[in-house]
Amino acid sequence: MNTTISERVTLLGEQMKKHQIDAYILSGSDPHLSEYPADCWKVREWISGFNGSAGTIVITAGKAGLWTDLRYFLQAEEQLAGTGIELYKQLPGTITIPQFIVQEIGKGGTAGLNGETFSVAEFRKLDAVFSRKNIRIKTSVDLIKEIWNNRPEIPTNKIFELPVEITGMSTGDKLDLINNKLRETGADCTILGALDDIAWTFNIRGNDVPYNPVAVSYAFISEEERIPFILPQKLTQDISENLKKEGVILADYSRIGNYLARLPEKTRVLVDVNKTNKALYDGIPEHCRIIEEMSPVILLKSIKNETETEGFRKAVIRDGVALTRFNWWLEQQMTCGNPVTELTASEKLTAFRSEQSLYIMDSFQSIIGYAEHGAFVHYAPRQESASTLRPENLLLMDSGGQYLDGTTDITRTISLGEPTEQMKKDFTRVLKGMISLAKSRFPAGTRGSQLDILARKALWDAGINYLHGTGHGIGHCLNVHEGPQNIRMEENPVRLQPGMVLSDEPGIYRTGEYGIRIENMLLVREDSETEFGKFYSFETLTLCPIDTSLILVNMLSAREQAWLNKYHQKVYDKLSPFLNEEEQKWLKEKTKEI
Amino acid sequence: MNTTISERVTLLGEQMKKHQIDAYILSGSDPHLSEYPADCWKVREWISGFNGSAGTIVITAGKAGLWTDLRYFLQAEEQLAGTGIELYKQLPGTITIPQFIVQEIGKGGTAGLNGETFSVAEFRKLDAVFSRKNIRIKTSVDLIKEIWNNRPEIPTNKIFELPVEITGMSTGDKLDLINNKLRETGADCTILGALDDIAWTFNIRGNDVPYNPVAVSYAFISEEERIPFILPQKLTQDISENLKKEGVILADYSRIGNYLARLPEKTRVLVDVNKTNKALYDGIPEHCRIIEEMSPVILLKSIKNETETEGFRKAVIRDGVALTRFNWWLEQQMTCGNPVTELTASEKLTAFRSEQSLYIMDSFQSIIGYAEHGAFVHYAPRQESASTLRPENLLLMDSGGQYLDGTTDITRTISLGEPTEQMKKDFTRVLKGMISLAKSRFPAGTRGSQLDILARKALWDAGINYLHGTGHGIGHCLNVHEGPQNIRMEENPVRLQPGMVLSDEPGIYRTGEYGIRIENMLLVREDSETEFGKFYSFETLTLCPIDTSLILVNMLSAREQAWLNKYHQKVYDKLSPFLNEEEQKWLKEKTKEI
Repeated sequence: MNTTISERVTLLGEQMKKHQIDAYILSGSDPHLSEYPADCWKVREWISGFNGSAGTIVITAGKAGLWTDLRYFLQAEEQLAGTGIELYKQLPGTITIPQFIVQEIGKGGTAGLNGETFSVAEFRKLDAVFSRKNIRIKTSVDLIKEIWNNRPEIPTNKIFELPVEITGMSTGDKLDLINNKLRETGADCTILGALDDIAWTFNIRGNDVPYNPVAVSYAFISEEERIPFILPQKLTQDISENLKKEGVILADYSRIGNYLARLPEKTRVLVDVNKTNKALYDGIPEHCRIIEEMSPVILLKSIKNETETEGFRKAVIRDGVALTRFNWWLEQQMTCGNPVTELTASEKLTAFRSEQSLYIMDSFQSIIGYAEHGAFVHYAPRQESASTLRPENLLLMDSGGQYLDGTTDITRTISLGEPTEQMKKDFTRVLKGMISLAKSRFPAGTRGSQLDILARKALWDAGINYLHGTGHGIGHCLNVHEGPQNIRMEENPVRLQPGMVLSDEPGIYRTGEYGIRIENMLLVREDSETEFGKFYSFETLTLCPIDTSLILVNMLSAREQAWLNKYHQKVYDKLSPFLNEEEQKWLKEKTKEI
Repeated sequence: MNTTISERVTLLGEQMKKHQIDAYILSGSDPHLSEYPADCWKVREWISGFNGSAGTIVITAGKAGLWTDLRYFLQAEEQLAGTGIELYKQLPGTITIPQFIVQEIGKGGTAGLNGETFSVAEFRKLDAVFSRKNIRIKTSVDLIKEIWNNRPEIPTNKIFELPVEITGMSTGDKLDLINNKLRETGADCTILGALDDIAWTFNIRGNDVPYNPVAVSYAFISEEERIPFILPQKLTQDISENLKKEGVILADYSRIGNYLARLPEKTRVLVDVNKTNKALYDGIPEHCRIIEEMSPVILLKSIKNETETEGFRKAVIRDGVALTRFNWWLEQQMTCGNPVTELTASEKLTAFRSEQSLYIMDSFQSIIGYAEHGAFVHYAPRQESASTLRPENLLLMDSGGQYLDGTTDITRTISLGEPTEQMKKDFTRVLKGMISLAKSRFPAGTRGSQLDILARKALWDAGINYLHGTGHGIGHCLNVHEGPQNIRMEENPVRLQPGMVLSDEPGIYRTGEYGIRIENMLLVREDSETEFGKFYSFETLTLCPIDTSLILVNMLSAREQAWLNKYHQKVYDKLSPFLNEEEQKWLKEKTKEI
């Protein structure tokens, strides 16, 4: 029996009365604070019908609201229609969630949330506002559990191992490294809640959620005890035995709480408050000492070893072959006048990737934005809104794949007809920015925020800017968005280090007209050592032609032209051995010198 | 009767015993935390003989040490010789002051300092280390007072007023602005200790210290009471009357402590912990509430109004005329083979500046560094070490003037002979960096740290870097180093705003060979508003030719060449009306197109 949205909200209201809660906050997150939760944790979607990837729901006695950002305004409006849940657009001037709650329930009221679905840091932000208003927060009330019938189970999909030939380091060695770092911070042990941190540590991967090849789990690590908490059904005999050989003790996923409760007195536990949910944190006994630091796994994971970087270099070849075939196919469809929509193009692109060896899944939902849709930075085509491509205007395509030996993320923008002068100027500016960052050299110690302007300067010179980051960290057969490094206008104290992989993706978005973004993946590498110190630079990983029909050559410096020609030569040399004669011919044309 | 250094240290040791202090720390600062203290506060020099502008002295029962940075290693070694005071070079690996004290006096010991000469923030840093080691700090022990005979008096030099025609805003209006800002932060009042903050607020200037035209004073500001605390001898009848007309109450410099002690209960006092000395802070009654924030005066002062910016534009013309005459003179001396040393050149430069109308003083000690001396970033010629210029190698000259209508800071590097290819390459790289920052355009909200790379990129591309900031804020007839804005590799959350004045001074330093720095002053101004938002850019203020004999024209882009030619045209147009025919002819040659 399926309930309607408004019935569900009513049921929740009854639960709130029963638990004496005046406002209930639903983050829609899972206990691992993942970008993509498994179905059993899609509480936000269940209660509201809204299935965007970001948003918070607040229910009070009289009102229900969804707060989400501009990526989802249209979708949320459509999906909330008739549910009684109001859309609050996260824009300057809109009432914030704490403001709304204070207004609705007044001083002295009680708010409630499921502590499993908020990080300690997120909870503290709410608490800071509420405590000033004398509003209490109950943090261990999962009201949904009681009312969601036929709720999906926690995924029991089998996990698989990545061999050391792919990871470059055994689990045992990784655990030793982590324990060394724990000792340096004065901690005896740490808890891991983030699924990619756990997957990296134990060299395991899973299929529990889309786009991220991770498996639902927790972990506890100390010198003596190295324990992943995983549902036993997920493990094969082989994996269990291999993990035990690395000194690992296996425990059931449901046991993490009991395990923490028994930690001995004065245990010094390192907790990353951004990566640990509030319920888990509260489960650490009071007789332990908590050391709040960034998890040591995050930095270790971000610095790829030589085996991993070699894997990236192989994965981008297969990715480039898939993209070449896709682009050739697309060009043929346009030439023949066959109907292609944003959605069918997206599906075809996934199909070409999935033909490649070592492919697991896409690394995120492809953004295929035609014409004005390209101006929505995070646009994803849906059945109801997908445009049909016409032989004019621009097509922005941002996509990526998960391969056993690496993760990819690439954006290309191509012209489907005769581009305007403004399109060419904009495209060339974006290209200049992308190249400027890619070919930069910088001293050891440099932070991403110092380099960010390189990708923007050609735009700023023309009074143009884009309001997203220039680059994010990328995992190795793991999350396509991975910290701690990034390249953004905002300050981030993390220094770029050899082995880190980042995207380089400037863009220009003309509302109602088109969007342009060009994105390559960069690997930080040692460059040189001079009397002035050590210098680093980037190796461009991505292999895929850049649409030269959109370039105004006279806007490029001689060095930029040389960079592009050399890049295109490399693209052809690396990809052509895997292409048939026709595909080679097509690629030759697309990579010819400017 | 003059005591020797070692006698003074002995006297101090006796005082320490009397006061039961195991380690005494001397900052050498004044109660206003000024860059240049007046003579009566030069305690560091009196106790050690070392007269560099930075350093901290620590005396224990058995040892005496001076900690200073690499600018002063040579000078400190010379000046400390035979005093028994040891030099501790502030380099990685050198024992720090807190480490030294912990080592010397052990846990449970007592350290002492004069709280008047440490900011609250500096004191807290020391205290954080000491409290962990159970070391107590007595903060109100001025042991020098008791032993320094014939100590100079607090300066009684007359202050003078800057009329509203120069400041662009009356004292009354400034005080209203400050009180508005205080209300916004929830404060009733604030204390000012920084001399430039006080000078700006009350439109007064002084002659109490070299280089900064400020007057020794404190101030208290609330809606009802606006009180500068100044020695009465410093005030003329006119100034007193004019200040009273602006709603100002005058009080004696020595009364600040008594005044604060009588603040009513629950007064909310805004204190800038970086700008307020520990003794003053401790004098605020406990029944007051302290709000710790950056002083609102700092940001108000940094954003120059139109009258002030117009003053800058006039001051740089006079400064440029003085520099033109100096450079012409220098060229003549070199041609005729007359002996010129770094020191005589420095004196001559000051002489040319002082001939200009509205000149008050130099804005800092000129850095005239010939050949290898140019590679010392903060080199200042001294009698003992001044080189004689020869018709070869490079001369780096960093200097500035205080004029009633503006403050200047300019660096030029010139070739005295036939430059090498490396010199030309380095010079052209520095020039490219300087131009890149000067002609940048950036969105409102941009911080200096985002722009810093523009001045470094041409250097980084060649594996070169400089380890000082690219730009500092500059006061208006005030301190040549003024916050809160700057342009540095290090993060600083302050956003650049129209009206801010900054230096733009990249450099290349080849140890043992030469130094190159080119510095212009920049004014942040509104640039344009597009569909992507507001953009700002810089107006170059400084007017002085750049040595074209050191430029490799083919290393400059067409735009960089155009910038330089346009700049030189402007230099000639603005300066030539004030030059005689011979000088004009010389300047014409120096500013001719490349």
